[in-house]
Amino acid sequence: MTAEIITVGDEILIGQIVDTNSAWMAQKLNAIGVGVVQITSVHDDLHEITQAFKLASERSAIVLITGGLGPTRDDITKKALCHYFETDLVLNISVLDNVYALLNKRNIPVGKSNELQAWVPKNCTVIQNINGTAPAMWFEKSGVIYVSMPGVPFEMKGIMEAFVLPEIVRKFSLPSIIHKTLMVVNIPESILSNMLNDFENNLPPHIKLAYLPHLNTVRLRLSGKSDQQKKLEKDLREKVFELRQIVKENIASEGDKNLAETIGENLRKRKQTLATAESCTGGYIAHLITSIPGSSEYYLGSVVSYANQIKEEQLKVSRSIIHKHGAVSEAVVVKMAEGLRKTFKSDYAIATSGIAGPGGGTLKKPVGTVWICVESEGGSFTRKFMFQGSRLQIIERSALTALEMLRRLMNDFPID
Amino acid sequence: MTAEIITVGDEILIGQIVDTNSAWMAQKLNAIGVGVVQITSVHDDLHEITQAFKLASERSAIVLITGGLGPTRDDITKKALCHYFETDLVLNISVLDNVYALLNKRNIPVGKSNELQAWVPKNCTVIQNINGTAPAMWFEKSGVIYVSMPGVPFEMKGIMEAFVLPEIVRKFSLPSIIHKTLMVVNIPESILSNMLNDFENNLPPHIKLAYLPHLNTVRLRLSGKSDQQKKLEKDLREKVFELRQIVKENIASEGDKNLAETIGENLRKRKQTLATAESCTGGYIAHLITSIPGSSEYYLGSVVSYANQIKEEQLKVSRSIIHKHGAVSEAVVVKMAEGLRKTFKSDYAIATSGIAGPGGGTLKKPVGTVWICVESEGGSFTRKFMFQGSRLQIIERSALTALEMLRRLMNDFPID
Repeated sequence: MTAEIITVGDEILIGQIVDTNSAWMAQKLNAIGVGVVQITSVHDDLHEITQAFKLASERSAIVLITGGLGPTRDDITKKALCHYFETDLVLNISVLDNVYALLNKRNIPVGKSNELQAWVPKNCTVIQNINGTAPAMWFEKSGVIYVSMPGVPFEMKGIMEAFVLPEIVRKFSLPSIIHKTLMVVNIPESILSNMLNDFENNLPPHIKLAYLPHLNTVRLRLSGKSDQQKKLEKDLREKVFELRQIVKENIASEGDKNLAETIGENLRKRKQTLATAESCTGGYIAHLITSIPGSSEYYLGSVVSYANQIKEEQLKVSRSIIHKHGAVSEAVVVKMAEGLRKTFKSDYAIATSGIAGPGGGTLKKPVGTVWICVESEGGSFTRKFMFQGSRLQIIERSALTALEMLRRLMNDFPID
Repeated sequence: MTAEIITVGDEILIGQIVDTNSAWMAQKLNAIGVGVVQITSVHDDLHEITQAFKLASERSAIVLITGGLGPTRDDITKKALCHYFETDLVLNISVLDNVYALLNKRNIPVGKSNELQAWVPKNCTVIQNINGTAPAMWFEKSGVIYVSMPGVPFEMKGIMEAFVLPEIVRKFSLPSIIHKTLMVVNIPESILSNMLNDFENNLPPHIKLAYLPHLNTVRLRLSGKSDQQKKLEKDLREKVFELRQIVKENIASEGDKNLAETIGENLRKRKQTLATAESCTGGYIAHLITSIPGSSEYYLGSVVSYANQIKEEQLKVSRSIIHKHGAVSEAVVVKMAEGLRKTFKSDYAIATSGIAGPGGGTLKKPVGTVWICVESEGGSFTRKFMFQGSRLQIIERSALTALEMLRRLMNDFPID
């Protein structure tokens, strides 16, 4: 059983927004055993939309469509659906009720464009959208299911979870697809691939391995497909075990957990706390940590010390040290971590200071120079890095590297 | 002149990564006057890849392909290219030199899988990749250009900017495509659409208007296409002026500038400073602000006060106030802003305190309850919000709302 995703909207094709819907939908479909064959983004153009419907329906039995259902005139998905199914729009009273209820609740007057949302193709089954005025629409024709949903992510997600995914599970007898992911830190993809050569050669045909590199990490993904779920789970567990034997401590986490989650779990288990002092990372480490639900249990907070004055006053780094070594230096980053841990009384501290660019670099300290210190009662690591890339990339690399240093410190793993 | 983008890789179709490359490429292509007709994501599958090449080449004269060029065996784009162009791989010595130079510089030993990167289809023109080992490849056949590039974003971007975009400009005589974007804050899409009804009816056929809603903002995008660039620029300037007359102060910025940039420009011009005290937003406001190059000129820093102890010690919020009103309260958020501005001596202060969830909500203060205070010598706003959505959405909405409140405070605009 395979599906296709079609996203409609000029905003994707002129690059004004990134299509995050498709990745989410693909994840959910894979989890219920439906492979996604193709994702297609098309213009708000009648011919292109209907052509995409046609091609998708030739390859897959499920076609999920998002976007182009807004109340404004650039949105033409409904027109395209009518054209494709050779039908007309009819007024659906329950949708109209929903439009009124929703807008009244938000104190927004109902205009003509809102009322138009209640007109839907005659041959569809309406799926109510409790988060917005545009309903989703379910069509079946010649053995193919088409579902048209709004492009607003949380509206689409609500509809998928409440209705579309359960309905697909109910309708079809689906095989098990299981993915297991291991996050490997600090081994380049090509070296990892050499390490895993024998492992790959010995994989059974129903299990595949993929490498997903991102900054200083490579996620290894094992994907298995089978009608026998129990056996598949066992096979994958064994393969994960084998991978752990080969890659060892460079495996930072299992599953789609990121470093902040892994560290958070560890801190919670040990009932320990963390604080951060961020200069060049500018709050990004704090954001990564506080994005994790429940982080207030172990995360005390951060001092984002962009100005030197803050380093002095909040972190007790003496002016003379900043003056002597410069703000981006080993001496300052160590003092930041020490001052932080003293003030916040945390078990662990992370401090960063660097030049994220594009300005501010010098010959001696070019853009990308970043000092990171992770500290605890029991020990510390302080390292200098020369990161490359844009301002945001340098911030991101610094933050992830700092988290990985902390993971190693917490687990008594060495840093080379 | 139109182009298509094809991204190759299972990781997109199982939803493990979000395709950010396509949006970036589409932006750059539009900027040089090449419209993108379709974006297609396909599996690492020979038949599907070549089929996508074929369909794209029937619609467009430029086909840009990313992904599937890594050193690991799940990557098969080169095999698909050979199959499609009915040719074989040959060893390219200059690519081999680049592979050795690059890996030596990074102290990575060259393995067999790295050397395979230097084998390219016989009929291609190699484009060197200075940021990675996989070269890009330029093909021409039956009047269609195909360029295959690595999927790693900064490698692809380097190749696009240094070679592919200039070469397309050189080869074709392209019309001007100009986009003008206005960011509108705090007006729902449907109301905005009613306000702009006459404006839309009076648009000339070569200019189109699109609505791009995201959280509390709607970006209005005017797109014009013409062979007469000067006239097009003038037409669009006039339309932007008309829009400004209608939407007035709810236009937060022009261009693709975000709120943090707009505020930053304003602060820099006035030589004023900003500091933030973040509880529920957990450093995200600091991150948005420090993502802007040059923000160290006006941004002093942040206290991310996740623990109450930090609110007391760093922000001088008295324990009794926290005890009496709770951490998520008007009294505390006002004290946070005041304490912050006193300590940091900044012209402006932003403070947030709320419950981002999913845990921590109560009947009286459910998840999504957020207090925000923006403060300056001359005045302040303090407001309570009830945001909906996931933890990350509540964090994001809170941060953007805080920035918008600051923008209004800085410009003496009212808040309803």
